[in-house]
Amino acid sequence: MASPPQINVGLLGMGVVGGGVAAALIEQSSDIALKIGRPVKLKKILVRDLGKHAGANLPTGMLTTIPEEILNDNEIHVVVEAMGGTQPAAGYMKQALASGKHVVTANKEVIAKYGPGLIYLAHQKGVNLLYEASVGGGIPIVGSLMRDLAANNVHSIKGIINGTTNYILTRMANDGAEFSQALNEAQQRGYAEADPTNDVEGIDAVYKISILASLAFHRSVSPGDVYRQGITRLEPQDFRYASELGYAIKSLAIATLQNGNIKARVYPALLPLDHMLAKVDGVYNAVEVEGDLCGKVLFHGLGAGREPTTSAVMGDVIEASRSLVAQDESTKVSASQNRSSEPDSFDYADALTEDRETGSSENSIDDLICKYYLRLNVQDRPGVFAQIGKVLGDGEISIASVLQKDTNQAEQTAEIVITTHPSIESSVQASLKALTELDVVRNVSNVLRIEE
Amino acid sequence: MASPPQINVGLLGMGVVGGGVAAALIEQSSDIALKIGRPVKLKKILVRDLGKHAGANLPTGMLTTIPEEILNDNEIHVVVEAMGGTQPAAGYMKQALASGKHVVTANKEVIAKYGPGLIYLAHQKGVNLLYEASVGGGIPIVGSLMRDLAANNVHSIKGIINGTTNYILTRMANDGAEFSQALNEAQQRGYAEADPTNDVEGIDAVYKISILASLAFHRSVSPGDVYRQGITRLEPQDFRYASELGYAIKSLAIATLQNGNIKARVYPALLPLDHMLAKVDGVYNAVEVEGDLCGKVLFHGLGAGREPTTSAVMGDVIEASRSLVAQDESTKVSASQNRSSEPDSFDYADALTEDRETGSSENSIDDLICKYYLRLNVQDRPGVFAQIGKVLGDGEISIASVLQKDTNQAEQTAEIVITTHPSIESSVQASLKALTELDVVRNVSNVLRIEE
Repeated sequence: MASPPQINVGLLGMGVVGGGVAAALIEQSSDIALKIGRPVKLKKILVRDLGKHAGANLPTGMLTTIPEEILNDNEIHVVVEAMGGTQPAAGYMKQALASGKHVVTANKEVIAKYGPGLIYLAHQKGVNLLYEASVGGGIPIVGSLMRDLAANNVHSIKGIINGTTNYILTRMANDGAEFSQALNEAQQRGYAEADPTNDVEGIDAVYKISILASLAFHRSVSPGDVYRQGITRLEPQDFRYASELGYAIKSLAIATLQNGNIKARVYPALLPLDHMLAKVDGVYNAVEVEGDLCGKVLFHGLGAGREPTTSAVMGDVIEASRSLVAQDESTKVSASQNRSSEPDSFDYADALTEDRETGSSENSIDDLICKYYLRLNVQDRPGVFAQIGKVLGDGEISIASVLQKDTNQAEQTAEIVITTHPSIESSVQASLKALTELDVVRNVSNVLRIEE
Repeated sequence: MASPPQINVGLLGMGVVGGGVAAALIEQSSDIALKIGRPVKLKKILVRDLGKHAGANLPTGMLTTIPEEILNDNEIHVVVEAMGGTQPAAGYMKQALASGKHVVTANKEVIAKYGPGLIYLAHQKGVNLLYEASVGGGIPIVGSLMRDLAANNVHSIKGIINGTTNYILTRMANDGAEFSQALNEAQQRGYAEADPTNDVEGIDAVYKISILASLAFHRSVSPGDVYRQGITRLEPQDFRYASELGYAIKSLAIATLQNGNIKARVYPALLPLDHMLAKVDGVYNAVEVEGDLCGKVLFHGLGAGREPTTSAVMGDVIEASRSLVAQDESTKVSASQNRSSEPDSFDYADALTEDRETGSSENSIDDLICKYYLRLNVQDRPGVFAQIGKVLGDGEISIASVLQKDTNQAEQTAEIVITTHPSIESSVQASLKALTELDVVRNVSNVLRIEE
């Protein structure tokens, strides 16, 4: 497609993100033109219901309910997908890329599930698929991994990438709130949805860490490859005990390399209080990348919301536009609409058609090695420690500390908090199973990993 | 220049940075080829003295003492400048750009002083001038401002961008060390040079903030436009008093917009203890960017050293290489070696030839408004407060708090620490002059701004 004297943008969706992007494209158009050296115009917006946007004060004819008016318009060079959900969003993105349009998206679910196939298609067509807004809102983590940190062999990525859960955990840590109470408050403030499952069960964070891990390790990490544990079982006493032991509790999304395998997981974990990530509070997000050259680099900022997401989407729109301009200036000829489609060394084509929810065994965390925090509800009588100690010892799990807490005289029960030295996940799981079979153990109240 | 089947790099300089880049290019060449899709080879290295590198185990003929062997070699596509200093480095960069080569540099002084002219030249020639390594070492702040945050109207940039001074201030804050003692230690550990002037007087940070401000505000901010105050006058008691008032002391590089004018400055300032930048310790760097869309985004990492700098330089080499590949794939024709040289709306051409050390009056900080911390050495006798209070009141400077400290019975002197409400810089300076003329004021020991 010949690069045009004016760059036209088609927008799919007019919700919170779409609305922000539309406003930026219309209100900031002269600023953007200065930054790119060419005007960038919003040409068409796909909406579900024209009537709903009657009061939006948009130029006549800008709204449409017919996707083809954007996807088949040869004068539209950049498509911004802001619909959310996998379908029809993924199909529209595929169609846009196939017809040689640059695509910008905020859709973490589509990129996590169909990213490799879409990236392959974009590569074939010589266009960009940009998705800075899919992770970390206004924090430039995607672009940094793609470009600035590209020379590094990344060892690990650790992040707080779900603002809803971080808000809930911050309330529980600072004010001793119960989970349900903190969730309720997050819902009232608009930080959590009516159905909070995606956030509190870690599903949203799984999408995001699979995107970051794929970028960092140059391999396809699908959501099904990511171990996941939500925050719903945390209780106020976990925060008290953790604090007593010198730790904060944060829901972390982590991807590390262990013996050449990627260990990706999302779970609430204990972090030393002086760790930079332990200080990230409220709806803020942060991501720490550790590379062989850069060392530890931390990014911190607002991970969600209309403006931060618009910042990321518009950054990508500017980048796509600049590459259209650069292409035009360097070629001085119309680039052919159908680019080379030489076979790439990676064959991601299959991934286009299927939902990659299934995990692979080499990515399981069974052989993960870390320290653990265990909270047990036990009978308060002599010999309990000995029995628990024997089970852990048999599993080759070495105890670092034991706290006895909250003795209940009437019920003759007590809480025991155990921290371990580095142990193997599968042994810990087996030992926990053995512990629950002991008469003296009423239940295993919580198991958290300790990240240092 | 036609994009080649292999991308050849010429390296100027083989010091700490050059050595790191050479090692990365040689040892990581297969990784880099995978990331780019084409081999990237180090072809030639300019050194001062061939004999000095005889033991470096480099392929025969790779070293040269003749710059033209790199600058005039049509098979070299990317030049990495790692010499430091302004000349001949700036001249070589100009020559490389003029002959259509991409240039990557870690040279903050050249970019701060000659950046606009070199950028203009690169634009004319259709090549990239990349300088991620000039600010913040391994922290991707330059690329983020250029691209990911490009949609924002930036309100402010605040950073700790000199690791040497941050190390010294951290030692003074945590251990009560004197400046000279902390400097000495920094020198012994290799964090400070034998002549520490560039660091402790803020000159290094001035270069860096002028680069960041130019990027963030899309205007040319020269080193002479930046107000500068070093850290040499800080004394241990300043840290004690600041801490008592709830503040840390950090050497900050700041650029803000006030009434459309850029206020850029480097000075030690008080920061609330819970501010993210107050927690940045030792040789770490951090930069906080506040934009209208992204809100506050913080970047934190290692700001200097061989590996972090190599991370940044190599990220830029990969980017330049990718743009050579993309250009080749999109055109399928040889791009003409001499690109369009249409006049740009900005005329930076003049800036190529002169050292822009002179400041402009609209960038002075005379009308800056902030809170102040004043430490005065006064005679310990009745009526002192009244006299000082009158001078400040006459200057329309409103006092927020007063502490009387360290009374010296023998000399009948005391230290007074005053913090003010927001005041105008020029009034504060005038009042300080008036204060020093009072009989009761022996001297003004320190003046620091408070950033909140």
